[in-house]
Amino acid sequence: MVASYTLTEICAQLGGRVLGDGAVCISQISTLEHANSAQISFLTNSKYHAQLVTTLAGAVILGEADADATDLPRIISANPYAYFAKVSALLNPVPEVKPGVHPCAVIGEGAVIDPTASVLATAVIGTRVVIGAHTVIGEGCSIGDNVQIGSGVRLYPRVVIYHDCVIGDNLIAHSGVVIGADGFGIAMDEGRWIKIPQIGRVVIGNDVEIGANTTIDRGALDDTVIEDGVKLDNQIQIAHNVRIGAHTAIAGCVGIAGSTTIGKYCQIGGSAGILGHLKIADRVVISSFTLIGKSIREAGSYAGIFPFSKTDEWKKSAVHLRHLDEMSKKIKVLEQKMSNQENLKGSAE
Amino acid sequence: MVASYTLTEICAQLGGRVLGDGAVCISQISTLEHANSAQISFLTNSKYHAQLVTTLAGAVILGEADADATDLPRIISANPYAYFAKVSALLNPVPEVKPGVHPCAVIGEGAVIDPTASVLATAVIGTRVVIGAHTVIGEGCSIGDNVQIGSGVRLYPRVVIYHDCVIGDNLIAHSGVVIGADGFGIAMDEGRWIKIPQIGRVVIGNDVEIGANTTIDRGALDDTVIEDGVKLDNQIQIAHNVRIGAHTAIAGCVGIAGSTTIGKYCQIGGSAGILGHLKIADRVVISSFTLIGKSIREAGSYAGIFPFSKTDEWKKSAVHLRHLDEMSKKIKVLEQKMSNQENLKGSAE
Amino acid sequence: MVASYTLTEICAQLGGRVLGDGAVCISQISTLEHANSAQISFLTNSKYHAQLVTTLAGAVILGEADADATDLPRIISANPYAYFAKVSALLNPVPEVKPGVHPCAVIGEGAVIDPTASVLATAVIGTRVVIGAHTVIGEGCSIGDNVQIGSGVRLYPRVVIYHDCVIGDNLIAHSGVVIGADGFGIAMDEGRWIKIPQIGRVVIGNDVEIGANTTIDRGALDDTVIEDGVKLDNQIQIAHNVRIGAHTAIAGCVGIAGSTTIGKYCQIGGSAGILGHLKIADRVVISSFTLIGKSIREAGSYAGIFPFSKTDEWKKSAVHLRHLDEMSKKIKVLEQKMSNQENLKGSAE
Repeated sequence: MVASYTLTEICAQLGGRVLGDGAVCISQISTLEHANSAQISFLTNSKYHAQLVTTLAGAVILGEADADATDLPRIISANPYAYFAKVSALLNPVPEVKPGVHPCAVIGEGAVIDPTASVLATAVIGTRVVIGAHTVIGEGCSIGDNVQIGSGVRLYPRVVIYHDCVIGDNLIAHSGVVIGADGFGIAMDEGRWIKIPQIGRVVIGNDVEIGANTTIDRGALDDTVIEDGVKLDNQIQIAHNVRIGAHTAIAGCVGIAGSTTIGKYCQIGGSAGILGHLKIADRVVISSFTLIGKSIREAGSYAGIFPFSKTDEWKKSAVHLRHLDEMSKKIKVLEQKMSNQENLKGSAE
Repeated sequence: MVASYTLTEICAQLGGRVLGDGAVCISQISTLEHANSAQISFLTNSKYHAQLVTTLAGAVILGEADADATDLPRIISANPYAYFAKVSALLNPVPEVKPGVHPCAVIGEGAVIDPTASVLATAVIGTRVVIGAHTVIGEGCSIGDNVQIGSGVRLYPRVVIYHDCVIGDNLIAHSGVVIGADGFGIAMDEGRWIKIPQIGRVVIGNDVEIGANTTIDRGALDDTVIEDGVKLDNQIQIAHNVRIGAHTAIAGCVGIAGSTTIGKYCQIGGSAGILGHLKIADRVVISSFTLIGKSIREAGSYAGIFPFSKTDEWKKSAVHLRHLDEMSKKIKVLEQKMSNQENLKGSAE
Repeated sequence: MVASYTLTEICAQLGGRVLGDGAVCISQISTLEHANSAQISFLTNSKYHAQLVTTLAGAVILGEADADATDLPRIISANPYAYFAKVSALLNPVPEVKPGVHPCAVIGEGAVIDPTASVLATAVIGTRVVIGAHTVIGEGCSIGDNVQIGSGVRLYPRVVIYHDCVIGDNLIAHSGVVIGADGFGIAMDEGRWIKIPQIGRVVIGNDVEIGANTTIDRGALDDTVIEDGVKLDNQIQIAHNVRIGAHTAIAGCVGIAGSTTIGKYCQIGGSAGILGHLKIADRVVISSFTLIGKSIREAGSYAGIFPFSKTDEWKKSAVHLRHLDEMSKKIKVLEQKMSNQENLKGSAE
């Protein structure tokens, strides 16, 4: 049932070159620490070099610089981490889902579902929805009226897409994802908040992945846009009218406030936040737990984290944080006095 | 199919006054940047004044101070942002849902569902649930036994309300909202945590909105209470026995720990946190990313954010944070020495 | 319908000793502030001593030190908080759910469901799933192929468990929990992220509780592991290959990045974060809102929170944070000059 490949076969499919016995047969991928002789492992960080000696793996994937770091049968690749991903995909193909609409799914009038697509049990599809080839709508998903979904999409169970949203090809959305809920738009009117209708959509490009329980709100007037190749981890909150540039990757629990535009190829660490109406340039890297409160105009790495310490020590430091201005002024006074003394002394000499 | 209104008709319904051609006909609202001649736009921030010149909008909504800032047909309002919200609601009425119980919904014994209410496909309604007039229970919602839901409520797909909770009129709850799950109550007993039953409820007032994937836990003994007019964004966590005062608005990803009471008309920024057993006064504004660790007794604006910078610069600063106490002591020593010198010099003179 | 017990009966079941009238009959538990004469209350914090005088409770639970703090009928326990939990569980037994598979549930081929288990309406069970005795699968849950679930488990509505995961006995998982979604594994390859298949599982021990909308990702190669007795609050994100030690308790909104190992009996405050590939020792306590960026080798309490203040004062302080390095250098210069003066003076004398 499990596929297996020789190193030579793998290289024929994925590139790279074999050193050692290309006839070694591999059926799974594993870590250096846990691999057995039917498994291939990989080294992407020289920190783990010692494990090359002790591993029981049948073969390993190495970068050019490590080509001679072991006598094990091995595949040499310019990018061993990406190569590992490709070998894993080869050995672990996504299970196929039987096409067709499950009898316990509910399909709205005028929905157009490609015959190669699958709509699983208890999914509910709105009116005039379009679902492309080989797309799988998981159990209990709810797709609003007029939603367009491309081909090759995989919605895991309990994904919700609100009306009118547009989804490109190959989206993977994990359970609990909510796409197109109303943005947080309210206006104060005589002591009461009134709701601002959220009439934009969410538009998602191709090759996007969205982690479990992440939420992406529809636009207030214009659309919220997720460009091609964006990768979102779990429990991210993306507010209305945000635009996320192509191939940007965002780790879990990040919050992005309304109308902010994020560039291409950015990387945003877990639990970071970005305030609203900002522009973040391409190729910006933001640390975990950092709040971005101003636009960032140039690529680079940004951070703003309070370093932790033992609670007792933290308390000693923290008490001064409210008094930094006084500390700064005291230093100025001291500098002034010192300077006066020096001048005095200078003039006295 | 789309409604359209003249400026004169809009003012007849919503107040305000027309300047220029009141016969201009409007069918949608848009931003100054993207509006066309069949659309009305609005100016609420003088920062965007320049766009008044270039906009293609057929009309605009302006405050009194900007009444003469353009020759476009316009509506003048004391509160142009709220007016914009009302015009948008007029032009974009919420689509009506057909009343009745879908054949694929599951209804518990003794449930009382108003004939004007809608229970959509795959929703599951517990025993003795009461659902008011014109309320819509979305696809896949799960309503626990004995829950009472008022009139005009809209639950989007996959909202869960646990047993015994009480929901007022006009609640809007977005997909993934969980109301009434157990609070986090545990007691350590001989090396093991034992569960404290959570026997309170969640009680929600009128005119509340709750964003996607927000969670509100039931009370441990007494109830968790959300007062009238509270507006909650996505992915907020509200712990057991919290009380949120009327007309308070909370942005996404905020966490509020158990038994904290928040006043009326507060505004809490995204990803902020509030520890447990605190009291926050009315009209307190809390910045994004700020942890409130003590009660706040007076209205005002509060913040505690670590400012971000380039990572290299951040590292240089951050290293000193653990040594602020030493820095403070060094300054004191210097001040003392300086003072001694001055005294010495004074007495020498 | 509601059970009631005398103090003597309670002690016979739960231990502890009665002082005063053991025949007093109790049917519910409440706070000192809200209890009536048919209710028992408890004192676990001497801060609330004054409420002992004013309470209308029919009886109270007290620690040994407070045994004589009131004349009310009372139960004395070495651990009054845990005792309160046990009394509450006695008075509020979890309602039984009728065993059997609801006709609106969907069961996959080869699933083995214990006859005492319940599968509620609109739940979807995959192929070859095993469900143990007295386990309840709530409305709309989705259980992937080959999942194994122990006995006494309670899944509230809309829990999703992905294929191949293993769940021990007595798990309580609240609505919106997602177990086993893909971890965030991507590799950059010629300008595009490619997906790293996530072929590990989530393995959960016995007696675990997981709060609403919490997500636990499956492992990339090895498993993600939650050990026995772990208690997780709402909206926690646990990334792939994390291991959480037995009896660790984690408050809401915490994020734990990939491959981090957390020890036993740790306590992690709300909205804290822990970076990836770290090791946290047993019995570590981490404050709310603290980012742990390095491994912690010894038990103890750790914090890293920016203290809040009025926004005006915060601004004054915050501006200096970017200049701490300069401040430190200025102090060094002053110290050097002062030292030079002292030396000079010393040599002049």
